[in-house]
Amino acid sequence: MNSRRFLLTLCVIAASIAAARAQPPPASADAIVRSPGFVAASDFLARDYDQFVRELISLTEIPAPPFKEQARAASFLQSLRASGLTDVEMDAEGNVMGVRRGMSAVASAGGASANGPILAVLAHLDTVFPEGTDVHVKRDGTKLRAPGVGDDTRALALMLMIIRAMNAAHLQTVNDILFVGNVGEEGEGDLRGAKFLLLKGKYKDRIKSFISIDGGDQGNITNGALGSKRYRVTFKGPGGHSYGAFGLVNPAFAMGSAIAKFSSLKVPANPKTTFNVGVVRGGTSVNAIPTEVSMDVDMRSESPDALNKLVAEFQAIVREAVKEENAARSTKEGKIEADVKLIGDRPSGETPVNAPLVQSATAVVKTFALTPQYSISSTDSNVPISLGIPAITIGRGASERSHALDEWTDVEKASAVKAAQVALAIVLAAAQ
Amino acid sequence: MNSRRFLLTLCVIAASIAAARAQPPPASADAIVRSPGFVAASDFLARDYDQFVRELISLTEIPAPPFKEQARAASFLQSLRASGLTDVEMDAEGNVMGVRRGMSAVASAGGASANGPILAVLAHLDTVFPEGTDVHVKRDGTKLRAPGVGDDTRALALMLMIIRAMNAAHLQTVNDILFVGNVGEEGEGDLRGAKFLLLKGKYKDRIKSFISIDGGDQGNITNGALGSKRYRVTFKGPGGHSYGAFGLVNPAFAMGSAIAKFSSLKVPANPKTTFNVGVVRGGTSVNAIPTEVSMDVDMRSESPDALNKLVAEFQAIVREAVKEENAARSTKEGKIEADVKLIGDRPSGETPVNAPLVQSATAVVKTFALTPQYSISSTDSNVPISLGIPAITIGRGASERSHALDEWTDVEKASAVKAAQVALAIVLAAAQ
Repeated sequence: MNSRRFLLTLCVIAASIAAARAQPPPASADAIVRSPGFVAASDFLARDYDQFVRELISLTEIPAPPFKEQARAASFLQSLRASGLTDVEMDAEGNVMGVRRGMSAVASAGGASANGPILAVLAHLDTVFPEGTDVHVKRDGTKLRAPGVGDDTRALALMLMIIRAMNAAHLQTVNDILFVGNVGEEGEGDLRGAKFLLLKGKYKDRIKSFISIDGGDQGNITNGALGSKRYRVTFKGPGGHSYGAFGLVNPAFAMGSAIAKFSSLKVPANPKTTFNVGVVRGGTSVNAIPTEVSMDVDMRSESPDALNKLVAEFQAIVREAVKEENAARSTKEGKIEADVKLIGDRPSGETPVNAPLVQSATAVVKTFALTPQYSISSTDSNVPISLGIPAITIGRGASERSHALDEWTDVEKASAVKAAQVALAIVLAAAQ
Repeated sequence: MNSRRFLLTLCVIAASIAAARAQPPPASADAIVRSPGFVAASDFLARDYDQFVRELISLTEIPAPPFKEQARAASFLQSLRASGLTDVEMDAEGNVMGVRRGMSAVASAGGASANGPILAVLAHLDTVFPEGTDVHVKRDGTKLRAPGVGDDTRALALMLMIIRAMNAAHLQTVNDILFVGNVGEEGEGDLRGAKFLLLKGKYKDRIKSFISIDGGDQGNITNGALGSKRYRVTFKGPGGHSYGAFGLVNPAFAMGSAIAKFSSLKVPANPKTTFNVGVVRGGTSVNAIPTEVSMDVDMRSESPDALNKLVAEFQAIVREAVKEENAARSTKEGKIEADVKLIGDRPSGETPVNAPLVQSATAVVKTFALTPQYSISSTDSNVPISLGIPAITIGRGASERSHALDEWTDVEKASAVKAAQVALAIVLAAAQ
């Protein structure tokens, strides 16, 4: 069976699904993985492994702090172009993307399938690490160590590898696939890249399914959108000389007290509920009582109710800490006040397990003898899920210590190639 | 009595003091203030008032953050030159200065009194305010409002005004006077300007008395050096993803707990003992557990024993907060550790009340019908006092809210001129 026949096989399956409005039968995953086209693509992935590692290192070493993804985006745009995609471009938000034409485009003379449904496949360009972070990759056996090397740079390199494999094996899908290196997944980016893509971008009305490559374990299918609320709390006061004005209220004391109380909160392990103080800043001099200090706080929960409860407790703690500081010291020059500003609000929700996108990914995972697991997380998929567009987040391969300076990813060849095979098969199954 | 006779009067008094090794009699202050030369200088001060206000505004509006005093120093150097001083220069630390020759220099043909004792008179160039602070001066009746307008910019303008008055009235002193706009008085500057001047500068062996213009009230004579200890405490931990790694130790929680405990410490009102958290910083992203946060802490006391006790309590609190955080959460990826670094250490000590410098200033203050008050503070005078050089810090005129963004100084004409008269008389009495 050549790749043309493989395409026809996919078409037959797709047509039968469309006719019956049924979930894709598990057989389709088997058919994909056992097809000569997929076998050829797998062979290519093994041959392309060294290139994958080189690109992973190269991309990791281009810093991409939040809101400063431009240099990495420019490099990734060149790689998308070199991979043979069409319509390669950067959008107004800074996302870079290109299209791999599906069958309908190939079948038409003009080569354009301007109105057909698109599968969007994303990996995010940004890391959590600020400017000046040492992003040099250190090799340690099969492990690569560097901030951001796993989350989500490995997914960017994986994306390039699977596009090349699809081309080398002449694999064809029914629908167009939009491959995107997107901005703003992390922190204060607040999913701005995915939001632009789905709410304002030129493909916004055509994206009918969505896969984010932004997890670790290949058996894991993230179909739940983890809700989160993020706040910047700014404590303001009159300030003054550390000695001459000693006894006046101090916003750093109010913030310290709020952090201490916050750190003592009890949250449920199930539904998993978490909180973090991620950034603190403020004050001008060691010998001046600050006029302003602030902290950035992240709260998440698998349960909207548990999240709302945590947020309410947090807000009460801030009020209490302010009140206590105003009672503990003099307010003759002014009181401490806290400004609680929402800086991130990620909706929760889920793509049901019985949705075709989740079912086809499940079938692929089983075909590779992995145990499917469904999870809830906060990724770019939160945006399509909140809009009713089926979306999942899948793995990029083994990595650990995301968001820490000692982050690493393991690129042992057999498992790296298998991770790419699984991702490729999930994309193929979703683009039928 | 013309100014020449005034000079002779001063010389006679000086000679008699030197002969008797006695404290200067109160009469010398009366003689200075009642002399026609001083009356002429006072008249000049009243006429020069508008120029003083213009220069105060102009200097205030040149930002001078710690370690970034260059622009203001360059401007002040030009003003020192225009005022008619000799040997106007910037030293290697960034202090700008010029000499006003005393009698011995004038008497000698060459005009140089290279080995005679010098009175150093300082006002500091630096403010506590960082780059980007709005230093535009707002007028509000006789009040000028701007960060740094009082501390210590008013003293810089005052210094220029009294140099001009001395020249206009042809006042002459026995000893050379070194007028200095110095760097590094505030915060982390840690008195670097005064230290350079007295330990390394070209006049280091000639400075035998020292006046810093860096206080408010004209009756106040600061003869005590307030000891202080300043620390930067850095809390370090393994970091991680705010959700994925939730449950790991968080250095922001340890710091918050330390601040909360620190803010609850009881310190004596007498001897006055104070503490401050002036700056907090750290963390990279709202959704990452920080790997590092830090705080800058200032502790002061009139009593070395009380200061040592406070420092010991503070260090115990840091250890306790670290221990509690390591017990409260998982240390499987690493523990919280605190690095406690001394960033400022100002020696305490005093110029005795019966020292000639303090006695002559006391006599001047009484001549102006003010009540002398002796105080302890942390100023550039800490450096000479620690070296056994007599030093006092005197007032520059009414100002409030030092180190706060709403700092102001009142330049009501009569009181501003009186403040300049008192400062001029103290300098003249000290340079006999």
